[in-house]
Amino acid sequence: MSNVTIKDIKVFVTAPKNINLVVVRIETSEPGLVGYGCATFTWRHTAVVKAIEDYLIPAVKGRCVDDIEDIWQVMKGSSYWRNGPVLNNAISGIDEALWDIKGKMANMPLYSLLGGRSRTGILVYRHADGNSIEAVEKQIQSYLDEGYKYIRCQMGTYGGNYDGTRQAINKPKGSFDGSYYNPDMYIRSVIELFRHVRADFGSELGLLHDIHERLTPVDTLKLAKKMEEFDLFFLEDALSPAQGNYFRYLREQTTVPLAMGELFANQLEWKPLVENQWIDFVRVHLSDIGGLTPAIKLAHFCDAYSVRTAWHGPSDLSPIGMTAQMHLDLNIHNFGIQEFSEFTDEEREVFPGCPNHGGDGYVYLSDKPGIGVDFDEKAAAKYPPVDMDHSWMFTRITDGTAVRP
Amino acid sequence: MSNVTIKDIKVFVTAPKNINLVVVRIETSEPGLVGYGCATFTWRHTAVVKAIEDYLIPAVKGRCVDDIEDIWQVMKGSSYWRNGPVLNNAISGIDEALWDIKGKMANMPLYSLLGGRSRTGILVYRHADGNSIEAVEKQIQSYLDEGYKYIRCQMGTYGGNYDGTRQAINKPKGSFDGSYYNPDMYIRSVIELFRHVRADFGSELGLLHDIHERLTPVDTLKLAKKMEEFDLFFLEDALSPAQGNYFRYLREQTTVPLAMGELFANQLEWKPLVENQWIDFVRVHLSDIGGLTPAIKLAHFCDAYSVRTAWHGPSDLSPIGMTAQMHLDLNIHNFGIQEFSEFTDEEREVFPGCPNHGGDGYVYLSDKPGIGVDFDEKAAAKYPPVDMDHSWMFTRITDGTAVRP
Amino acid sequence: MSNVTIKDIKVFVTAPKNINLVVVRIETSEPGLVGYGCATFTWRHTAVVKAIEDYLIPAVKGRCVDDIEDIWQVMKGSSYWRNGPVLNNAISGIDEALWDIKGKMANMPLYSLLGGRSRTGILVYRHADGNSIEAVEKQIQSYLDEGYKYIRCQMGTYGGNYDGTRQAINKPKGSFDGSYYNPDMYIRSVIELFRHVRADFGSELGLLHDIHERLTPVDTLKLAKKMEEFDLFFLEDALSPAQGNYFRYLREQTTVPLAMGELFANQLEWKPLVENQWIDFVRVHLSDIGGLTPAIKLAHFCDAYSVRTAWHGPSDLSPIGMTAQMHLDLNIHNFGIQEFSEFTDEEREVFPGCPNHGGDGYVYLSDKPGIGVDFDEKAAAKYPPVDMDHSWMFTRITDGTAVRP
Amino acid sequence: MSNVTIKDIKVFVTAPKNINLVVVRIETSEPGLVGYGCATFTWRHTAVVKAIEDYLIPAVKGRCVDDIEDIWQVMKGSSYWRNGPVLNNAISGIDEALWDIKGKMANMPLYSLLGGRSRTGILVYRHADGNSIEAVEKQIQSYLDEGYKYIRCQMGTYGGNYDGTRQAINKPKGSFDGSYYNPDMYIRSVIELFRHVRADFGSELGLLHDIHERLTPVDTLKLAKKMEEFDLFFLEDALSPAQGNYFRYLREQTTVPLAMGELFANQLEWKPLVENQWIDFVRVHLSDIGGLTPAIKLAHFCDAYSVRTAWHGPSDLSPIGMTAQMHLDLNIHNFGIQEFSEFTDEEREVFPGCPNHGGDGYVYLSDKPGIGVDFDEKAAAKYPPVDMDHSWMFTRITDGTAVRP
Repeated sequence: MSNVTIKDIKVFVTAPKNINLVVVRIETSEPGLVGYGCATFTWRHTAVVKAIEDYLIPAVKGRCVDDIEDIWQVMKGSSYWRNGPVLNNAISGIDEALWDIKGKMANMPLYSLLGGRSRTGILVYRHADGNSIEAVEKQIQSYLDEGYKYIRCQMGTYGGNYDGTRQAINKPKGSFDGSYYNPDMYIRSVIELFRHVRADFGSELGLLHDIHERLTPVDTLKLAKKMEEFDLFFLEDALSPAQGNYFRYLREQTTVPLAMGELFANQLEWKPLVENQWIDFVRVHLSDIGGLTPAIKLAHFCDAYSVRTAWHGPSDLSPIGMTAQMHLDLNIHNFGIQEFSEFTDEEREVFPGCPNHGGDGYVYLSDKPGIGVDFDEKAAAKYPPVDMDHSWMFTRITDGTAVRP
Repeated sequence: MSNVTIKDIKVFVTAPKNINLVVVRIETSEPGLVGYGCATFTWRHTAVVKAIEDYLIPAVKGRCVDDIEDIWQVMKGSSYWRNGPVLNNAISGIDEALWDIKGKMANMPLYSLLGGRSRTGILVYRHADGNSIEAVEKQIQSYLDEGYKYIRCQMGTYGGNYDGTRQAINKPKGSFDGSYYNPDMYIRSVIELFRHVRADFGSELGLLHDIHERLTPVDTLKLAKKMEEFDLFFLEDALSPAQGNYFRYLREQTTVPLAMGELFANQLEWKPLVENQWIDFVRVHLSDIGGLTPAIKLAHFCDAYSVRTAWHGPSDLSPIGMTAQMHLDLNIHNFGIQEFSEFTDEEREVFPGCPNHGGDGYVYLSDKPGIGVDFDEKAAAKYPPVDMDHSWMFTRITDGTAVRP
Repeated sequence: MSNVTIKDIKVFVTAPKNINLVVVRIETSEPGLVGYGCATFTWRHTAVVKAIEDYLIPAVKGRCVDDIEDIWQVMKGSSYWRNGPVLNNAISGIDEALWDIKGKMANMPLYSLLGGRSRTGILVYRHADGNSIEAVEKQIQSYLDEGYKYIRCQMGTYGGNYDGTRQAINKPKGSFDGSYYNPDMYIRSVIELFRHVRADFGSELGLLHDIHERLTPVDTLKLAKKMEEFDLFFLEDALSPAQGNYFRYLREQTTVPLAMGELFANQLEWKPLVENQWIDFVRVHLSDIGGLTPAIKLAHFCDAYSVRTAWHGPSDLSPIGMTAQMHLDLNIHNFGIQEFSEFTDEEREVFPGCPNHGGDGYVYLSDKPGIGVDFDEKAAAKYPPVDMDHSWMFTRITDGTAVRP
Repeated sequence: MSNVTIKDIKVFVTAPKNINLVVVRIETSEPGLVGYGCATFTWRHTAVVKAIEDYLIPAVKGRCVDDIEDIWQVMKGSSYWRNGPVLNNAISGIDEALWDIKGKMANMPLYSLLGGRSRTGILVYRHADGNSIEAVEKQIQSYLDEGYKYIRCQMGTYGGNYDGTRQAINKPKGSFDGSYYNPDMYIRSVIELFRHVRADFGSELGLLHDIHERLTPVDTLKLAKKMEEFDLFFLEDALSPAQGNYFRYLREQTTVPLAMGELFANQLEWKPLVENQWIDFVRVHLSDIGGLTPAIKLAHFCDAYSVRTAWHGPSDLSPIGMTAQMHLDLNIHNFGIQEFSEFTDEEREVFPGCPNHGGDGYVYLSDKPGIGVDFDEKAAAKYPPVDMDHSWMFTRITDGTAVRP
């Protein structure tokens, strides 16, 4: 027992990349010893901030920083109704900051504290998108030039809204506002895209695709089977969390590797998929399930079933959260791949210590203690919260039916 | 199409019973036409208020009030990460207010709008608690005197912390702060209580008991089997939502009717329990799953499996939410029973139109249009939000292990 | 990365309690920084020593001590044929020593390194045995006087070989040598014992019993159901690992809490039992599954199913291994109880820093870094390996059929 | 009862083929009556020797040689913790020697003692490997010229490390030492190989392939499905024993015959695979499960499910063990095929009586009593134990993750 206690907790919102990021700073009774965690649920960030400030801070202030496990359990139970992205993100902010502190107290990078490395570099994949096959292929080439080896290819973001086919949407009169797409057109366009990409770049390029829950179960099944010939590294978020049992049919009918889970916020969403080995990669958003403490347990649970990790790693995650999960990537044996995007200059200004791509398709972590990413409060203040565009959330298929984004 | 639109939405927090209640008022383009809904997640209410104000109001303002179904889907999807008590309660506030408006536009009480009645009065149960068998029995008698026929009997609230046995808690040195209880003592005390109650009040009294997730799965199984002899109406919240699959063993080994679900916030929590008929009553907290729109669907789903309803109806629910669900109680065929507590004078002052107990174990609804409960903003302002006691949330068993409250 | 490497590994066998204990010492490149681990498979200890000396030491010497995870995987795979008690114990010796070193490098007790405490003291149970009911009850009283609250009660060790009933064994002529017992007599005697104990000591005493795989599946089922009335804390090792699927019938027919696993050496032995929640406590012998690294993963796996831990903690375990698992007992949320026996003066001489019973039924750990138990090589040399009595291994039922001990 | 007892047991290690082989000789009370068994676990042979010398010999010395069944049960149980390759191999050495003795006492070859023949010759397959398609095809032709009809084709041993594609391995900086391979490259190269082989040798050639657990479950599924077109006799060791349940998906999606099991050491590893008929051939390494006694039972168990045998028959097995299993090949009805390699002159010198290939794809056994293979101790001494190359055990995929060899 160290007798080091939680002295103060502060929540920051900053948007160096025009995405509101929520960062939690824990100040300890030990002068100079602070930790940072990520609580970014960018689409409801003010609710997360309230949950931390009004409920979690009073509940954990004064606790000894050593006892992360008990503090996590107390935070989880202290709302009575629990789970969900708001509360889990709030918990994550404090949880990750406590692990950062533990690493600093141990004078070890988190990957060493957690048991040491299983590998020295983190295999990553990038996201290529465009409104035409040419545009996507141009972006692929650009990634290859930078040394990346695995690329997720999309056409017109999600749902295949690319220029040449927009007219395929035939809405009924008086349709509601929203972001429309045509699922049939999407299926056709993605097949066409991959046929070109595989032909043009050869069999060694690692290819991925994200359905982003944009299809009905049976259309997903249809697409998955059609995609077999392209030897994907994985097919991502094929179904919504509520339709998890349908993965059974995907596994029974196709050999396409399946990755699932950026939306998971409740253990019942992943348990049957992992237990039955219906999926091959679990890709939760760490703060969305409550931080590092539950992610470590989830990784070990998946290991019992040879399910590997592919944590969610987009821009709506702070570099602190991104790096926290990368420590797991180095540590756990059942790591698969990491979604990645380069950090901008503005992010690096606010978050000194962001990890770097090695030019060879791998990202490398420093051996700084803890998470190893700092937070410059003054720089952060230069990028105040922004009004984010929520329009893509209001998503509809051709006939106007609202679907989950 | 009515052309009546959502003009303004306002969120109120009031605490006439020293419990923070969250009420949503929708003002329409039709002068004087307003609706009220309940968004009460009392243990995280400021986060709910933020979620409504910062995200839902901008998303739905201006929409035609007629299209509840599409508005609900849009609200659900608009956060990308979804589910959970904060977001579902926020949605519920707007959803219930829209149903209130629709009833008023139809000039029908909600139960009529939804298809009419299956019965004329709502069978309810009350909650008896005490620190001794005598105290519980005294409260039972008092309910019987008021005409109630079904009573949930607890001993020292949850976990059996009653005076005579408190000394049975043998904590280790240096234990963490919290509200301690001894699961073994709880099991023994509840058996003792029911043995007395059944002997003293005879076999006609409807008896219920709430485990409130306070036991491990196997101890729950043990208690359930021991309770068989008391012919319970039902045993409530036997397991945590995460342990739902264990209901299989309860159903295989006991004949005790099982009611489950006040904590549910995700359909995966109830689906296997209902599909397999492991439970007999579903008792969700309506606002916790997103309001009336999903509750109607859930009731119909349960009907397919002969599972009846017993909606959660405690004090941490506004009279608006309470009455909203009572309209369902009158309407749906597979209604079972309703948890109920009398409305205080202060509640009746803030919420004119609260329904009444008929002195015969049934509660009756008025035939006012919509939900039929009003909201007096001035009266509400007399009861501003209070600092609530969260200490019961930090619950621990004898050896100090934190358990969910 | 610390650049601290494994410089030398030495294996010791010592028998301060007349049980051969295998201890591994890792010397690092950092002068004075050493770690100790337990590799005690006392019934085949020379084979374990060979496995470490001839195969594991060459495989890991020179590796950086930070990378426990990769070192564990390499040790596991490096024999091609794997699993089993000899190889797993060998791996454990090195694995635990590496965790000891990591704790010392972090200057943290292992429980803090692993994420901090879930409780402050470790609930333990003791073992009472005797050849008569009186003898067992005398031992129970003696434990109660020392402050213990949970006691495992046996009659004539395993199989009920107590004086009054020995004549019940009616061997055929010319029977093979061995340790004989009569399963029917065992069932009757254990019921008789518990009837007395519960009557004499009241309902608050925590009672356990160990079948030690001594019955056929159906006899186990019969005994388990008969034991229900005694409200056991748990029934231990009801079936052999090979008969794990039969736990299904135990769970379907009885409410007795079930603890299983001291013999487990292969993940297939525990997986279905945990997945299906057929057992309530997992009680592996840590070194028998390969040390702390797999035990942490197993604990997390069990947590997903509300299965708690009750690690094997007998005398055929070194105080280093015993204490290593006690760090997990403090850390993991899903700890249940710990099997325990007091350390003798001779053990304390060889292993300075053994943890202590607090006189209240809980054992407490010091806050020394790492495992916190030292190894005095000179003292160890005073207790050289002994010839152990293997006769209890040759176990037979009445008609002479050999059964597993 | 013969009154012939076990007088002495001696363990030998010899390496006529530069692979350490462990041979057990049992000397009986009958002058000149000796038996030999195989206890070869070449990668941990010194631990096996210790297990036999220090524990099994004292346990069985003096026993009547007739009672193999009881002796086997006693050996199995006598370590308390059981199973695993070290202990099972130790048991096998004694078990096979006792069967050899029994055959000699009956003056019958083992196949006759066990019930007689189901066939007169043993269908075998050979192993072709190479660093190029040309090299593999050259070796195939050479086997065809010798009369063999079934050939297992590999490319660059396991993992497809053949010359032309080695550069496809893109390791991260600072990677751990080890034997690297690229799973994607392996999949592509094996498809390419079989496309050529089938085209060049026609449809009558019996083809097999061994995945050797080198792929993740889903990649195995992918490869298995792609291999369908080549009409394999079987696909070997598709998954690790721990991932046995995944054979369900292989059986559901492909018609490729599946052979599994050289690594099995615990009955839980084969039971569900056989019970569910997920596999078509069981191919255990006899000494790894404890010798002939359990292998006979396993063969009969498989027969109940139409699963045939294909015992493991590589070089890391003594000719005694190899021939012991070939007696089963002649005897049991559900024999499938036998892995085989020619015995070298050195092996024939040490082990007089090795069986011969008949030049027609079948191997024939002599009708000498017992196993029929002798052991020349003097010749054996000319080939003392060697330091074996363990480097292939430290196997890693491209990004550095350790995988089981």
